[in-house]
Amino acid sequence: MFQKILIANRGEIAVRIIRACRELGIQSVAVYSTADADSMHVQLADEAYCVGGPKSADSYLKIDQIIAAAEVGDVDAIHPGYGFLAENAHFNEVCRSSGFEFIGPSPTAMEKLGDKNTARSMAIANEVPVVPGSDGLIEDDAAAIETAKEIGFPVLIKATAGGGGKGMRVAETADDLENALSQARNEAQAAFGNGGVYLERYITSPRHVEVQVIADHHGNVCHLFERDCSVQRRHQKLIEEAPSPNLPADKRKAICEAAVRMIRGADYSNAATVEFIVDQNDDFFFIEVNARIQVEHPVTEMITGVDLIKEQIRVASGEKLSFKQDDLKVIGHAMECRINAENPDKNFMPNPGLIKKFYAPGGLGVRFDSHVYGGYSVPPHYDSMIGKLIVHCVDREQAIITMRRALAEIVTDGISTTAPFHDVVLQHPTFVEGKHDTKFVEREFTGK
Amino acid sequence: MFQKILIANRGEIAVRIIRACRELGIQSVAVYSTADADSMHVQLADEAYCVGGPKSADSYLKIDQIIAAAEVGDVDAIHPGYGFLAENAHFNEVCRSSGFEFIGPSPTAMEKLGDKNTARSMAIANEVPVVPGSDGLIEDDAAAIETAKEIGFPVLIKATAGGGGKGMRVAETADDLENALSQARNEAQAAFGNGGVYLERYITSPRHVEVQVIADHHGNVCHLFERDCSVQRRHQKLIEEAPSPNLPADKRKAICEAAVRMIRGADYSNAATVEFIVDQNDDFFFIEVNARIQVEHPVTEMITGVDLIKEQIRVASGEKLSFKQDDLKVIGHAMECRINAENPDKNFMPNPGLIKKFYAPGGLGVRFDSHVYGGYSVPPHYDSMIGKLIVHCVDREQAIITMRRALAEIVTDGISTTAPFHDVVLQHPTFVEGKHDTKFVEREFTGK
Repeated sequence: MFQKILIANRGEIAVRIIRACRELGIQSVAVYSTADADSMHVQLADEAYCVGGPKSADSYLKIDQIIAAAEVGDVDAIHPGYGFLAENAHFNEVCRSSGFEFIGPSPTAMEKLGDKNTARSMAIANEVPVVPGSDGLIEDDAAAIETAKEIGFPVLIKATAGGGGKGMRVAETADDLENALSQARNEAQAAFGNGGVYLERYITSPRHVEVQVIADHHGNVCHLFERDCSVQRRHQKLIEEAPSPNLPADKRKAICEAAVRMIRGADYSNAATVEFIVDQNDDFFFIEVNARIQVEHPVTEMITGVDLIKEQIRVASGEKLSFKQDDLKVIGHAMECRINAENPDKNFMPNPGLIKKFYAPGGLGVRFDSHVYGGYSVPPHYDSMIGKLIVHCVDREQAIITMRRALAEIVTDGISTTAPFHDVVLQHPTFVEGKHDTKFVEREFTGK
Repeated sequence: MFQKILIANRGEIAVRIIRACRELGIQSVAVYSTADADSMHVQLADEAYCVGGPKSADSYLKIDQIIAAAEVGDVDAIHPGYGFLAENAHFNEVCRSSGFEFIGPSPTAMEKLGDKNTARSMAIANEVPVVPGSDGLIEDDAAAIETAKEIGFPVLIKATAGGGGKGMRVAETADDLENALSQARNEAQAAFGNGGVYLERYITSPRHVEVQVIADHHGNVCHLFERDCSVQRRHQKLIEEAPSPNLPADKRKAICEAAVRMIRGADYSNAATVEFIVDQNDDFFFIEVNARIQVEHPVTEMITGVDLIKEQIRVASGEKLSFKQDDLKVIGHAMECRINAENPDKNFMPNPGLIKKFYAPGGLGVRFDSHVYGGYSVPPHYDSMIGKLIVHCVDREQAIITMRRALAEIVTDGISTTAPFHDVVLQHPTFVEGKHDTKFVEREFTGK
């Protein structure tokens, strides 16, 4: 096992990783920017090194400085957290060539899964469903109707040179298709000088469902069930939960098994999340693999009792997974709200600054992963998340109740947070019924 | 169900009860002393009334003021928490006669169990083991040997008029007894003018084990398993855990069933704790019943998933228990450290004052029930507990690891706490093996 780990990150995830290190008896080394000198991860780590100025490019993305800190700190391994350099295959490679284990997959696996086309091909090769589409461009309208029937209506016509919605049309039926094709081609030709279009199934009410997977270096791959992250605003997840509401048992089994096939086929070790969209028929389609720990990993920890960060460290050190698939059971329901220093009444404008008084929510079933405290100043240089409020209850109904109770307890005098917005979302009948999709927040609350 | 509840308490337990109210959709009314105007329970409650000056006698023990607040707040019920008026049968009676439900047992049940002799008789009547002793005073030394053999050696000779250890002797064998009796009689005669002595079994290495019980108004009584609270200093519990380490399964079953018999026999409703001492042979003996919620109730909540405060409120309102005995299972191991504002290096001298910077421990498996925050000033007028650090893990070994990790995270700049002392206790081999008794702390750490 490692003796000492450097955490190439900041904020709550740095605190989270320090906690795991401490429980494993491993020394922790923090790195920080000059803007983060007072941050809790610096205070909790056994050692801390300043790696540069406030801008991420000058510190948390500065590979040479981070490697220098790892050398001075004489660590065995580097945990990248999420964001920053976490999915940078070059950094991964530099860590390893500098003699530090990278707590994550190999650079090769990371690079392959990071390329969307390669990842889609790997999904197909491993019998993981992808969004059905035409095999290349549509040349012949009659053939297009046959293809569309195979894909299933409604279909989305997309310009191969497209972007920003130009050259995009939805055809609900075969009758609509010819007209829609011609409109899309003309629009694409005018916008991009290229009228080439292709077809893809149009997912009308997509849910975001992802599967947590972890693999060791001994060929063991387990899934830890799925999470639903359909409450999003501008593709940013706001609320995550596990298990996914309203997903039939056979689909849950199938999506989890598909995720395991995907990771097994990628010759992958360490934690990964396989992301899917799920349509109104509960059919699921591969989107991408995140080759790192994710923000929302705690909801999976709560329902399974598995400490994912400790497991990441263990498998990176060469140990076998500490459990087998059959050992894992879902207990209760977990939910996470990302608490951001943003003003929901001013279009979610970031709201950094001094937290004059802070009170963390707590009590039975409540976990608050955060790096902030009363007197802490949220710096303006990084993402605005100040904490993750996680609840674990007997069922989803109770989880919503406990979440609302805990949200109401948060005191952050001096800055606005998204806590009141979450409270409104949690009361919306569509969310309460678990029938929301990824367009729910923009449709119901914040406009386009 | 109640619409509005007054909480006749302060500190973490007031916060705890407000949380339960909020999850049940019940309005909460806080009372506070002038010293507690900034306390978190005042800020979290829906309404708050000042009931007097800093001294407990002038506020939290002031029955007329509390009843006046209940009348102004127009509440349905009063939750007394623990301490203060929680086991005051007169207050219980006044609440009821003023038209407020008291969230606890009837005044009659409270009064009967509050009297030690009556409670001992009730235990005997319900076949709950009590510490074996002679039937009255010892008149005849020859008969005393027979009695001592029945009780089992070693026996404790106690002066009927005794106190402060005077007139007390331990006899290890029958040979010791005659001499010890005469010494004890002479000492008692000299000290109290009364040479009367009686015999009781001497429990050489007592553990404190207690059983959580809850009963409704419909004749349902369930136990929620036991807690071990043997880590004590001057009869104050420091660390509590569940399940009790090293208690054989048959004894666990027997002690839990005895507790249920005791409560059923007392015509009792609401939460109660039946306290026992357990000897080296794992035999258990009744001490007393606490007719209220206890400080250490969260460890039971963690291993059972039952919210005890919500259950107290439900049964007080007339609802049936929300579970049956067979629904309850022990999951994992939970432990609680009481974090006191005391200086362990200065003989645990209370250390109230301003907490300049505060950081609450958190993460997977950690719960911190507290009313403090950065900028809060711990008043000198009340008990020194500033929070309860609770962990819930797969087993006891992991619970100790996680507790040590969480203890190390607590930041309370400005005041000393007992957190470092807990860390030392948690590393002691006797504690690690779960072989400590109630004399462990004084024997190993703090002297007499």
